[in-house]
Amino acid sequence: MNEAADQSVLALCGGVGGAKLALGLCRVLGPGQLSVVVNTGDDFEHLGLHVSPDLDTVVYTLGGVADPERGWGRAQETWEFMGALGQLGDDTWFNLGDRDLAIHVLRSKWLRKGGSLSAFTMQIAKRLGIAVRVLPMTDASVQTIVATEEGDLLFQDYFVRRRCEPAVRGIRFAGIDASKPVAEFDRVVAERLRAVVICPSNPYLSVDPILAVPGLTAALVAGAAPVVAVSPIIGGQAVKGPTTKMMKELGTNVTNGAIAAHYRGLIDGIVIDRADAADRERIDVPVLVTNTLMHTLHDRERLAWEVLAFSDTLTCRSALPAVGLPAP
Amino acid sequence: MNEAADQSVLALCGGVGGAKLALGLCRVLGPGQLSVVVNTGDDFEHLGLHVSPDLDTVVYTLGGVADPERGWGRAQETWEFMGALGQLGDDTWFNLGDRDLAIHVLRSKWLRKGGSLSAFTMQIAKRLGIAVRVLPMTDASVQTIVATEEGDLLFQDYFVRRRCEPAVRGIRFAGIDASKPVAEFDRVVAERLRAVVICPSNPYLSVDPILAVPGLTAALVAGAAPVVAVSPIIGGQAVKGPTTKMMKELGTNVTNGAIAAHYRGLIDGIVIDRADAADRERIDVPVLVTNTLMHTLHDRERLAWEVLAFSDTLTCRSALPAVGLPAP
Repeated sequence: MNEAADQSVLALCGGVGGAKLALGLCRVLGPGQLSVVVNTGDDFEHLGLHVSPDLDTVVYTLGGVADPERGWGRAQETWEFMGALGQLGDDTWFNLGDRDLAIHVLRSKWLRKGGSLSAFTMQIAKRLGIAVRVLPMTDASVQTIVATEEGDLLFQDYFVRRRCEPAVRGIRFAGIDASKPVAEFDRVVAERLRAVVICPSNPYLSVDPILAVPGLTAALVAGAAPVVAVSPIIGGQAVKGPTTKMMKELGTNVTNGAIAAHYRGLIDGIVIDRADAADRERIDVPVLVTNTLMHTLHDRERLAWEVLAFSDTLTCRSALPAVGLPAP
Repeated sequence: MNEAADQSVLALCGGVGGAKLALGLCRVLGPGQLSVVVNTGDDFEHLGLHVSPDLDTVVYTLGGVADPERGWGRAQETWEFMGALGQLGDDTWFNLGDRDLAIHVLRSKWLRKGGSLSAFTMQIAKRLGIAVRVLPMTDASVQTIVATEEGDLLFQDYFVRRRCEPAVRGIRFAGIDASKPVAEFDRVVAERLRAVVICPSNPYLSVDPILAVPGLTAALVAGAAPVVAVSPIIGGQAVKGPTTKMMKELGTNVTNGAIAAHYRGLIDGIVIDRADAADRERIDVPVLVTNTLMHTLHDRERLAWEVLAFSDTLTCRSALPAVGLPAP
């Protein structure tokens, strides 16, 4: 048993793509060896309920109750609530499944009583038998605002109601200055981490809010563990979601070079897909080229193993004493 | 067309039994000619949602979406939310159906924004195509407290969680002193009413809270319209619910005489079932003896017609000029 096997891993992730790799990491690591910090910039109040789309995607995925096709929400979901809502004349642009509703109702009650989002999430994860620390990026209220050609839109307005149609001019995270990482995050980074993995989520919408929480990026940079990003780009475009369109609108090339540049100063290595192997030429950190598309559970586990093994090679570099190696 | 047909009727009611007669009245009266004042002492906060059991039973019944068998909630209901709630480890003693949830979520959001229960109820009734003014007894928060041998219980704790098992010592309505009737009630009683009908609901739990709202009973007594109670007792016991058990525990005989005595000073007449015809001997207001059991829609309409016709005979009495009739 090597030393690395005893150490824990920290993953940062947003929704669907990130959750897939988080599940892979969860399955290849031992119980309690994975912590996942999740974007909450997409959280919003809907119908008086506190909805945390990325946290729920991660919790449902790790808990084995996520819908495998839809990419969000719960498996074998039903929609009677939405039907009744429409009948009573209310807004039905944001779908809430009957099973999914349970977590929103419980969370809203919890938060209204003064409980923290992190404590709620840990409790729910426990009840779903998840042996992973699932942590919101912060317990503070942060809202991702998408500045578009049509003005500012709350993330869900942009993403769900407007289906990412308005061209994006910029992104900001309202409330971020007053936020701080959750206490569990501080405890996790104080441990001897084996690796920090940035999952293949949208860098601008899903990962940047996490990195923008004051003190969070600095803690990762200061830590001894290598930081490895898994690029969300495959074959010159994002697997899912608005990443490709958004990168173009923001005047960025849709390349892994642009992703690596985006994370410059933070990452010690990047994992890209074979389809984009040529991109490695323009990346100035170590690169692992492999298959990053995760169709099956096996894909998730294989990629998790490869990312960790790649990171472990970087560990050696990070572990170099500042004074240099003794002469042979 | 007689004059009475132009006038409106006011009904007071609680849940299931009351809602049945309210539906009958709704169907035999013209659009806009019925107002129903509903008990809200059973309202409670559950899972952070404001639940109004009696209001919803009335709204669902009048809107044609009530479950015909269960006696509460919506027809063709599903229970996926409850299943997920149990999975997440929360209390499942109070059932909330997937369709039913829509009204609770919308109402909770409405009230939290400072809207009134009466405005919400009128809006929902409109959306369900209900041509009846459905009015909560008050917009204030009133809680029916059942004093039992085991101590005070909130109504739903007594009724649902404890299934009416603890013996009842008394009943009180917390918050009633600070309550007042809704503005629509004042407008309705200011009209020339044809009749006030106390529906066959539990007098202690469903009707008394309404009558206890300061000013409400006085307005009914002062009005020119006759007040007719339809007794919830058939064959010496209540059709449904805890009325029989509770009357015994409170030391009251389970007779229509006791019901009439309970409403003494308010009612001008009472409607009792043929099975209890003998009770009329001990009742000191006019009595209509008929079939009061409402199995079918036809039963509800027939009873509504009979109650109105009975009330119209009492109208004559009330309409007598205070100075007496001129000599023949």
